[in-house]
Amino acid sequence: MGEQAGLKVAVIGGGSSYTPEIVEGFIKNYEQMPIRELWLVDIEAGKHKLDIVGNLAKRMVKEAGVPIDVHLTLERERAIEGADFVTTQMRVGLLEARKRDEHIPIMHGVIGQETTGPGGMMKALRTIPVLLDICRDIERLAPEAWMLNFTNPAGIVTEAVTKHSRVRSIGLCNSPINFKKFLAEQYGVTEAEVLPEFVGINHLHWVTSAAVKGVEKLPELLDGGKTYTATNVPTLGWDAEFLRSLGAIPTYYLKYFYMTDVMFDEMQEALSKDGTRADVVSRVEAELFELYKDESLRVKPKQLEQRGGAYYSEAAVNLMNSLYTDKHDIQTLNVSNGNTYDFLPADASIEVNCVVTAQGPIPLPPRRVPEHIKGLLHAVKTYEQLTIEAAVSGDRGIALQAMVHHPLVPSVSVAKTLLDEMLEANRAYLPQFFKL
Amino acid sequence: MGEQAGLKVAVIGGGSSYTPEIVEGFIKNYEQMPIRELWLVDIEAGKHKLDIVGNLAKRMVKEAGVPIDVHLTLERERAIEGADFVTTQMRVGLLEARKRDEHIPIMHGVIGQETTGPGGMMKALRTIPVLLDICRDIERLAPEAWMLNFTNPAGIVTEAVTKHSRVRSIGLCNSPINFKKFLAEQYGVTEAEVLPEFVGINHLHWVTSAAVKGVEKLPELLDGGKTYTATNVPTLGWDAEFLRSLGAIPTYYLKYFYMTDVMFDEMQEALSKDGTRADVVSRVEAELFELYKDESLRVKPKQLEQRGGAYYSEAAVNLMNSLYTDKHDIQTLNVSNGNTYDFLPADASIEVNCVVTAQGPIPLPPRRVPEHIKGLLHAVKTYEQLTIEAAVSGDRGIALQAMVHHPLVPSVSVAKTLLDEMLEANRAYLPQFFKL
Amino acid sequence: MGEQAGLKVAVIGGGSSYTPEIVEGFIKNYEQMPIRELWLVDIEAGKHKLDIVGNLAKRMVKEAGVPIDVHLTLERERAIEGADFVTTQMRVGLLEARKRDEHIPIMHGVIGQETTGPGGMMKALRTIPVLLDICRDIERLAPEAWMLNFTNPAGIVTEAVTKHSRVRSIGLCNSPINFKKFLAEQYGVTEAEVLPEFVGINHLHWVTSAAVKGVEKLPELLDGGKTYTATNVPTLGWDAEFLRSLGAIPTYYLKYFYMTDVMFDEMQEALSKDGTRADVVSRVEAELFELYKDESLRVKPKQLEQRGGAYYSEAAVNLMNSLYTDKHDIQTLNVSNGNTYDFLPADASIEVNCVVTAQGPIPLPPRRVPEHIKGLLHAVKTYEQLTIEAAVSGDRGIALQAMVHHPLVPSVSVAKTLLDEMLEANRAYLPQFFKL
Amino acid sequence: MGEQAGLKVAVIGGGSSYTPEIVEGFIKNYEQMPIRELWLVDIEAGKHKLDIVGNLAKRMVKEAGVPIDVHLTLERERAIEGADFVTTQMRVGLLEARKRDEHIPIMHGVIGQETTGPGGMMKALRTIPVLLDICRDIERLAPEAWMLNFTNPAGIVTEAVTKHSRVRSIGLCNSPINFKKFLAEQYGVTEAEVLPEFVGINHLHWVTSAAVKGVEKLPELLDGGKTYTATNVPTLGWDAEFLRSLGAIPTYYLKYFYMTDVMFDEMQEALSKDGTRADVVSRVEAELFELYKDESLRVKPKQLEQRGGAYYSEAAVNLMNSLYTDKHDIQTLNVSNGNTYDFLPADASIEVNCVVTAQGPIPLPPRRVPEHIKGLLHAVKTYEQLTIEAAVSGDRGIALQAMVHHPLVPSVSVAKTLLDEMLEANRAYLPQFFKL
Repeated sequence: MGEQAGLKVAVIGGGSSYTPEIVEGFIKNYEQMPIRELWLVDIEAGKHKLDIVGNLAKRMVKEAGVPIDVHLTLERERAIEGADFVTTQMRVGLLEARKRDEHIPIMHGVIGQETTGPGGMMKALRTIPVLLDICRDIERLAPEAWMLNFTNPAGIVTEAVTKHSRVRSIGLCNSPINFKKFLAEQYGVTEAEVLPEFVGINHLHWVTSAAVKGVEKLPELLDGGKTYTATNVPTLGWDAEFLRSLGAIPTYYLKYFYMTDVMFDEMQEALSKDGTRADVVSRVEAELFELYKDESLRVKPKQLEQRGGAYYSEAAVNLMNSLYTDKHDIQTLNVSNGNTYDFLPADASIEVNCVVTAQGPIPLPPRRVPEHIKGLLHAVKTYEQLTIEAAVSGDRGIALQAMVHHPLVPSVSVAKTLLDEMLEANRAYLPQFFKL
Repeated sequence: MGEQAGLKVAVIGGGSSYTPEIVEGFIKNYEQMPIRELWLVDIEAGKHKLDIVGNLAKRMVKEAGVPIDVHLTLERERAIEGADFVTTQMRVGLLEARKRDEHIPIMHGVIGQETTGPGGMMKALRTIPVLLDICRDIERLAPEAWMLNFTNPAGIVTEAVTKHSRVRSIGLCNSPINFKKFLAEQYGVTEAEVLPEFVGINHLHWVTSAAVKGVEKLPELLDGGKTYTATNVPTLGWDAEFLRSLGAIPTYYLKYFYMTDVMFDEMQEALSKDGTRADVVSRVEAELFELYKDESLRVKPKQLEQRGGAYYSEAAVNLMNSLYTDKHDIQTLNVSNGNTYDFLPADASIEVNCVVTAQGPIPLPPRRVPEHIKGLLHAVKTYEQLTIEAAVSGDRGIALQAMVHHPLVPSVSVAKTLLDEMLEANRAYLPQFFKL
Repeated sequence: MGEQAGLKVAVIGGGSSYTPEIVEGFIKNYEQMPIRELWLVDIEAGKHKLDIVGNLAKRMVKEAGVPIDVHLTLERERAIEGADFVTTQMRVGLLEARKRDEHIPIMHGVIGQETTGPGGMMKALRTIPVLLDICRDIERLAPEAWMLNFTNPAGIVTEAVTKHSRVRSIGLCNSPINFKKFLAEQYGVTEAEVLPEFVGINHLHWVTSAAVKGVEKLPELLDGGKTYTATNVPTLGWDAEFLRSLGAIPTYYLKYFYMTDVMFDEMQEALSKDGTRADVVSRVEAELFELYKDESLRVKPKQLEQRGGAYYSEAAVNLMNSLYTDKHDIQTLNVSNGNTYDFLPADASIEVNCVVTAQGPIPLPPRRVPEHIKGLLHAVKTYEQLTIEAAVSGDRGIALQAMVHHPLVPSVSVAKTLLDEMLEANRAYLPQFFKL
Repeated sequence: MGEQAGLKVAVIGGGSSYTPEIVEGFIKNYEQMPIRELWLVDIEAGKHKLDIVGNLAKRMVKEAGVPIDVHLTLERERAIEGADFVTTQMRVGLLEARKRDEHIPIMHGVIGQETTGPGGMMKALRTIPVLLDICRDIERLAPEAWMLNFTNPAGIVTEAVTKHSRVRSIGLCNSPINFKKFLAEQYGVTEAEVLPEFVGINHLHWVTSAAVKGVEKLPELLDGGKTYTATNVPTLGWDAEFLRSLGAIPTYYLKYFYMTDVMFDEMQEALSKDGTRADVVSRVEAELFELYKDESLRVKPKQLEQRGGAYYSEAAVNLMNSLYTDKHDIQTLNVSNGNTYDFLPADASIEVNCVVTAQGPIPLPPRRVPEHIKGLLHAVKTYEQLTIEAAVSGDRGIALQAMVHHPLVPSVSVAKTLLDEMLEANRAYLPQFFKL
C-alpha cells in the first residue's frame, strides 16, 4: 500500500446516516492517510438515501479542499475493485428487521436487543451470507484489501469472515474507545497515556486493568465512593459489592446478563412508551436525512452525534491510519484468538488490545483473566460459534442449539418458540433456511 | 493393600438410612474383597440412628455368616486409623438444612434443589470444611486410604479434597451406573457389554456415545420413534428435535438448565402439595428407621430401594473391588481433569469413564466432545471453582461471584438476596463466613 | 463386524517370512475370532516367496483343522475388498534398500538403522506413498476395515495414514508386549497382572511406571543391585546412575540417542564383520524359505523365532481379537495423540496404553510425563512430521529440514550430503522427488 | 515511580569494563529518564576494578554536567535499598571460570562456549544461587524495583528468578537490537520503521518475519543472491538451501547446533592459537582498565566498542526508559512464556517482542511459528529447566539429566565425564553440590 499515490476506500452501506462521520474522519486525517477515491456503495433499496448522504459527502470534501473523489454507486464490484480498505456498515432487512429482532423476544419474556440474545442471532443469520458474498468479490477483486466490519454483531460476523473466506478482516466497536476517552477525561490525561486491558469478546468484555500513565487505577474506579468527574461513567448502575468482588469493570452490554431482570423491565416499559429502539432510531434517521438534504450544509451536522455510535468513525479512521502507516500503536479490535485464551478455539474472534502494524493487528494477551468470567465468556462464544455454523449451513437443528445455549434464553421450549417465529419473520432474508 | 489378611473400611455418616445397602454390598462381595473391619462412625447428633442402623448391620453380617467385625463409634479418629477405604455419606445440617436449600430459592423464583443451583452451593459451603477436617485425619492416620465421596455435591467436594488435601479421593454418583443398566436392559445384554461415554461433570453430563457390543446405538436412542422396553428411560421428557440436534443424551439434572421453566413449575407445585423433597425424604427415613428397629429384620428391607439413590452402594462396592483387585475395568467416576478437556483446569473434577487400577482410576478421554455443550459445562465449572474457593476462604465476595455466575441465577440482585438469606439461614454451619 | 459369519483378513506383503507366525496366531485364536478368508497378497517381485510361504500357510491351516480359506494373490483390490482387517508388513525396495539405509549413514559417521535416523527416514519416504495408495483402495473397497501397520517406521506411517486418508489405522510394535512379558516373568505373574505405562512414540518410549498386581515396581527395576531372573532384561547396558536420575526405563532404541558413541562403534564393527543387519537378515531369510519349501512342514518352524520381531503376530492377533470382541483390555498401540500430550499436535501418532473397544482404541493418558524427556520426544516428533510432509509433497527442502532436525544428524552439511546420496540411491522408489 | 524527583539505579557487578557504556546511556537519556543516584556495587575481589571504572564514571558525569550522584560500594544492601532499577552484569568465578567452561568441553569433543552447552550450564549453576540471594535483598529492600538481567545465560537466569523469587525481572540480550540495526541499515530506514519477529528463547531464536515499513522482506533476505550493504549480515555463513527451506533467519548462536562440526573445528583451532575466548577477553579487559585509569579520560573510550556486547547498554537504557515513561514501544526481551507457545510451560522464559509499559512488558505472540523449529526449541528449553532445578536443589542426578539432554552432548558417558570434571573444577562456586 505504502507505494501508492493515494488510497481507495469502499464503504459498503454507504447510504447510512453515519457516513458524514467517516467522511469527516477522512478529511481530518488526509495528511497522514491520503484517500484518493472514496466509493459509497449501496443496494437499490438504499439509492435514495445514498444520493442524499453522498451529495453531502461531496459538499464536505469540497468545503475542506481535499482532493478526494467521492463516487456513488450501486455496482459493488466497481467499488471493491482494487480497494485498499472496504468498510461494511450494513443493515440487512433494514430497520424493519431490527424492530422484529427487538420486539419478538420481549413478547416471550426474553431480552430483545440488536446485538445480544435472539435479536443479535437473527441479525447474524441475515448478515453473514451477504457479507460472505461480498468477501467473494474482495477475494477476486481486491485480495490485499483490509475489510473493516462495523456491521453488528461485529464479533460474530468477523469470525464468520475469518472462518469462511480468505479476506483479511477486522471487527470494530466503539465501546473500547469510549472507555479510553472516559479514563483519559477522568484523570485529565491524553488517550495515549491510558492503557486499559479488555478481556472478552465483542459486546461481552470486562476491563481488568486501567493504567493511567502506568499506574493502576482499577481499584479506585471500582470503589463506589469515588466522585466521578467524567460524564460517560462505565461503573454507574452496577452494584458496588458486585463490582468490587468481580475485580473488573463489565461493559454496558453485560447488564443484559448480570441485570437481566432490570434490563428486561426497562425494555418492556420503553417498548410501551416509545416502541422499540428501532422505532426511535427510525425517527432520528428521518430527521437526519432531512438535514442532509439541505444544500447549504457542508459539514457534519452536530445532531449526528446524538445518534449513538459515538466515535465509531474515529475508531475506523484510527485503524486505517495505523494499518497504512505501520504505526505500532495499541487499539482494541476484534481479531482471531490464536493462543490468547487457552479455553477458546484459535479461530474464535475476541475483542482485545492489539498492536497495529501494516501486516495487521497483533493481539496483546491480557495479563490477568479472572476465573470468574471464563464460564460466561465461553458460554456466549459457544452460542456465537453455533450461530455462524447455522448461518452458513442453514441447518435448523444447529440454529436451535445456538438459541438454546444462549445464556439469556431460559429453556428449550422458549428457544423453539422464538426460533419458529423469528425464522419465519425473517424468511425473506434467510433463504438458507427455506430451501425447497 | 494386597498383602493384608482383610480390609478395614470406615463409613463416615454411618448412621445413614443407606447403610444397609452398602453392608449388603460388602456381604455379597466378601469372596473377592474380604472386609475384616467395618467402622460405622457418626456425630453425637446422629447417635440414635447409628445405633439402630448399626445393629441392623450386625444382624445382617451374622445372618450372612461372613466374618466382618462391625464397629459403631462416635470417635472418628479410631474409625479412620489404618483404614483402606473411607466412604463419606454426610449431611451437614441434616435434612433441616436441605429443606432450606430447596425452599429459599423457590421463594425467589429460582430452582431449589439439593445439588444444583443455590441449594447445592450452600450444601457445598457447609460440607467442604467438615470434609477437609476429615482429610486432616486421613492424611495423618491412613495416608494410603482411598476416600470415596458419595456426599453431594460429589463433584465439587471431590475437587475441594483434591485441591486442599493430599488424600486420594474419588467422587461417586449413581447416575452413570443407572444409564448402563438402562442400556443393557434395553438391548438385552450384560452391563459389561455396553460402553456409554459420558462428557461433563457430576450432575451435568451428556452421553455422547452408547456402544452395545461395540455397535453405536446413540442415533436410535435419540430417535423419539423407538419403543422403549426399559423402565428407566433417560430420553423421556425431552423435546425430540432438541435431542436430535444436540446429538447426545443429557443427564436428568440438565433439565434444571434446559427446561428451567417446566422444572420450576413442577417444584413449586410439589412444594405446595408435599413440601420440599427434604420433607418427603424425612418421612421416608422415619419409616425406614421404624423398620430397622425390628430385631427380626436381618437383611436389607425392600423398602430401602424406593428411597432413591438406587445402585449407589453397588457403584461403591464395584469401585472398592476394582481398586483392591487391580481389575482394569471401566467405571464412570469423578476424578481430576488432567488433559481430558483442554478448556477446563487440570485440577477440575470431571465425571468420566475411567480404567480402575490398584494405583487409582485413569480417565479415558471421550472420543467426541460436542461444541454445543462446552460453554454451559465451563459456566457451571466456573461456579463450582468459585464455590470451593468461597468455602475454604469464607470470602463473601467470592461467594457472591459464585452465586452470580451460576447459570440458574438470573441477576446480581437476586444473587445478593439469595446469598444474604441463605448464608444467614446456614449461619450455624458456616463459621468461616461469620468470623468476628 | 459382529454380525458376520466369519472374518476376512488381507495381509499386504503376505510373502514375508513372518507370515507363518501370524497364521499360527489365527489358528490358535480361531474360537474367539473365526477367520473365514485369509488373503495373502504381494507384488510381482515377491511372487516366488508368496507361493512358498502361502503354501506353508495352507498346510498349517489344514493340519490344524480350522476352516480358514487361504488365498494367494497379486491382485491387491481383490484381497482388500470387503476385508475386516488389513495388515501391512511391507518392505518397499526389499532388503537391498534396507542395506543402503544402514550403510550410507555409517559412512558419514551417523547411526545407520532401519527405523531410527536417516535410514528410517528413507524407509518412510519410500513406504508412505505406497501405503497411501493402498489406503485409496481401502477407502473404496473396505471403508469399515481396520488397517494394522507393522510396517516400520510404524509410528510415522500410521501418522501419515491418519493425516492423509480416511482409513481407520493402528500402528503396532512388539516392544511393549516384550516389556510386559519381561515384567510378568520377572515377578512370576501373568501378563494381565502387570500394567507398565509407556510415555512417548514408536521406538522412542520410556516406561514410567511398572505396576505388578497394582504395586509399583519401577524403583526396584531401576535399581542396579537387583538380581534379574528374566532373560530379556530391558535395563541391561544402561548406566545405573543415569537410569536412576531419569526415573524411567528407556526403550532399547533410545540407546541410539543416549549412547550414540557406543552404538555407532558397535555398528561400525559389525559392519566390517557381518555386513549390515540387512545382510544378516538376508541370510536368515534365505534359510527360512528353504525350510518353508519342505512339503512335510505343517507348523511354524522353531527357527522363525530367532528371526527377531518376537511376539509381533501375538500383538497383532490380540489387537484384532479385542477389536472384534469389544474386549476392553489394555494394549500398547500407536494412535493419534488427541489431548494426551499437550505439547504435541493432536494428530501426531504416539505409542500409548489404550483400552481396545470395537469402536477402536482409546488412549489412556500416562499418569506422569517426566520433564526430562519432553524435549527429545518433541525433537524426534518434529523430524517425523517433516518426514511425512516430505514424503507426501516430494519437497526436497522439507526433506532437508527433516534430516537437519533429526537429533542424530550432527550438522547441516552432513544432512545435505546424506540427503543427496540417499535420495539418489533410492531414486527408483522416490518418484515424488524426481518429477520432471 | 512516576512521582519521584529522580531515579535510583543499582548496578550489581559495577566494576565491569562495560560500565562506561551504561553510564554514557544514562547521560544521553537524562532528559527523559532523570537518574539521581547511580550505585555501582561489586564484591571485595572486584574492588580494584570498581574503583578504576567508578572514578571514570564520576568523571563522565561531571564532564556531561548532569546531576547524577555516583556511589561506589561493596555493601550490596545499601545499593539496592529503594532502587527503581537493579541491573546485574556479574561473572561468578570471574574469567578464570569462563576459561574452564570453554576449555573442558572441547577436550571431550563438545562445543565449549560461554552460554551454550556445558559451559553455559556451569555458568548457570554458579550464577543462579548468587542471583537468588540478590533477589532476597530486592524483595526486602526494593520490592517494586525492576531487575534487568544482562548476566548470561540471560534466559535461564531470568527464568530462575521468576520461578524462585517475587522480583520483577526481565532478561536482556543485544542480539535482537543488533538485528534491528542491521535491518534498518540495510534498507536505509530508522529502527522504528522495522519490525522483525523473533521466535524462540535467549541465544536460540529464529527471525520469522522482517517487516520494513510494513512490507515483508524476509524472502529477499533469505535469498543468497542479494548484495548486502550492511556490515553485520546475519545470513552470512549459512547454507543458502538450508536457509530457504528453513524459512527463517537463525541467530548466530544456532550455528553451534546446525553447524556443530564447523564451529567445533574453529574453536579447536582458535584454542591452539589464542587460547579460549576468555583468554582473549582477559587481555582486552586489561587494556581497557589501563585506559580507564587515565585521569584525563572523561568519556567512554572508543576501544570499548570492540569489546563485543555492542548495544547492550543501549538495550538496557531503552528498556528502563520505556518502563519509566510507559512508552508502549516494542522491544525484544526475555520474559515468561504465558500462552505464547502452547508447547512450552507458562513459566518458561522466552525471547520475544514485547510492548513495554510501566506495568511491565507484554509479550506479542509471533504470527508464525515454523513447525521445523519446535523440537529443537523444546529440547533446549528442557535442558534449561533441568539446569535451573539442579542449580536450586544441588541434585547431581538432575544435573546429569540436564547435561544428557542438551542436544550438543553426544551421550550419557560423555555427559558423566563432563559433569564430573566440571563440577569438580567449579567446586568453590557450587556449594549446593558439595554439601557434607
